[in-house]
Amino acid sequence: MRSLYHLPLCPFSRRVRIALAEKRLDFELVEERPWERKPEFLALNPAGEVPVLVHDDGTVLSGATPICEYLDETVLDPPLLGHCPDSRAEVRRLVDWFDVKFNREVTLCLVGEKVMKRMLGNGGPDSRAVRAGFANIRIHLDYLGWLIDHRRWLAGDHFSLADIAAAAHLSCVDYVGDVPWEDYPSAKDWYARVKSRPSFRPLLADRLVGSPPPAHYADLDF
Amino acid sequence: MRSLYHLPLCPFSRRVRIALAEKRLDFELVEERPWERKPEFLALNPAGEVPVLVHDDGTVLSGATPICEYLDETVLDPPLLGHCPDSRAEVRRLVDWFDVKFNREVTLCLVGEKVMKRMLGNGGPDSRAVRAGFANIRIHLDYLGWLIDHRRWLAGDHFSLADIAAAAHLSCVDYVGDVPWEDYPSAKDWYARVKSRPSFRPLLADRLVGSPPPAHYADLDF
Repeated sequence: MRSLYHLPLCPFSRRVRIALAEKRLDFELVEERPWERKPEFLALNPAGEVPVLVHDDGTVLSGATPICEYLDETVLDPPLLGHCPDSRAEVRRLVDWFDVKFNREVTLCLVGEKVMKRMLGNGGPDSRAVRAGFANIRIHLDYLGWLIDHRRWLAGDHFSLADIAAAAHLSCVDYVGDVPWEDYPSAKDWYARVKSRPSFRPLLADRLVGSPPPAHYADLDF
Repeated sequence: MRSLYHLPLCPFSRRVRIALAEKRLDFELVEERPWERKPEFLALNPAGEVPVLVHDDGTVLSGATPICEYLDETVLDPPLLGHCPDSRAEVRRLVDWFDVKFNREVTLCLVGEKVMKRMLGNGGPDSRAVRAGFANIRIHLDYLGWLIDHRRWLAGDHFSLADIAAAAHLSCVDYVGDVPWEDYPSAKDWYARVKSRPSFRPLLADRLVGSPPPAHYADLDF
């Protein structure tokens, strides 16, 4: 059995959880609080960050992108990156969009300020960052809606790591109740399709002690 | 002829420049200031960021990771990611290390504060960030030295995108004179080897108006 060191509201860990489930690979979850800097965890990943995937044979893979690329190279069905270099470049462009741009402009401003800061004992949320997050998410939902108005899935005809990365981030923001779904029907329709996939369901059962999600979080018909 | 939209002191643009040259692909450089948000550039890359590579046939690739993965898939010689999934995972882990961790803890604190902020008209450097960058770079040079004491190149026996990503970031920090090479002989020896590669030489000729690099920046025998 593989072990995935993760944090429940970490979008990078969530990406790997969904990808593993799409590939129909069994794994057990190990919750790791990287800020505790446990020596045994740092020995696995000197960067001291989740996600880390440990295989039965001792192979250790660190980081959402290295792990997901490895899974797609070693377990061919279903492909999550696409069949040709051009389509893979488009998937990777959108994964980057969510991991770098959306993460910086939305996830860190909302989930980072409201949840992670308190978890780390770094005080309350910075209201300027939260306001910026609220403004920025609308631009991203506009773009996501535009993509989905032109394509079946975010990167083209097939469900891919682009959908997984986007849904991983949005699901964390949705946990804190900050996605204005009603104003973005195309994005909402896409998210309902992702939410109904068996690979996504376990994420909807995550609960942080003392921070329950809004009622619609786990509702497939939200 | 391909066109690479770039910024001279952007480590992500530098990674693509080195990778293109290692693959012996011709390209012309187009300097792009993303903060000017030119409509014709946003039409190429709606994320509004460099690097962007435009091929003769109109194919547009955005982002250092999508571009470098595409180059390695389409131009096989020399391989820059490695021959098997395990070695590719190690290269990608280290690329992530420099693009995420080193970028946040060092590049943004030193190059971001000293060069980019002024370029953007955002005032002078934040001295706390600069002090953090000086402290953090020592931890990274320790780790880089440890790797190079155990391996020929950063990810193993072969020169790879891990070396390219690391050298791209360090060369930007070196431009502002903030790499304490003398205290890290193994890291210095590795950088001297990278610096002497023909693919790396054009970066050493970059000059920002009003901000010349220190004398050792372009010196192969620094």
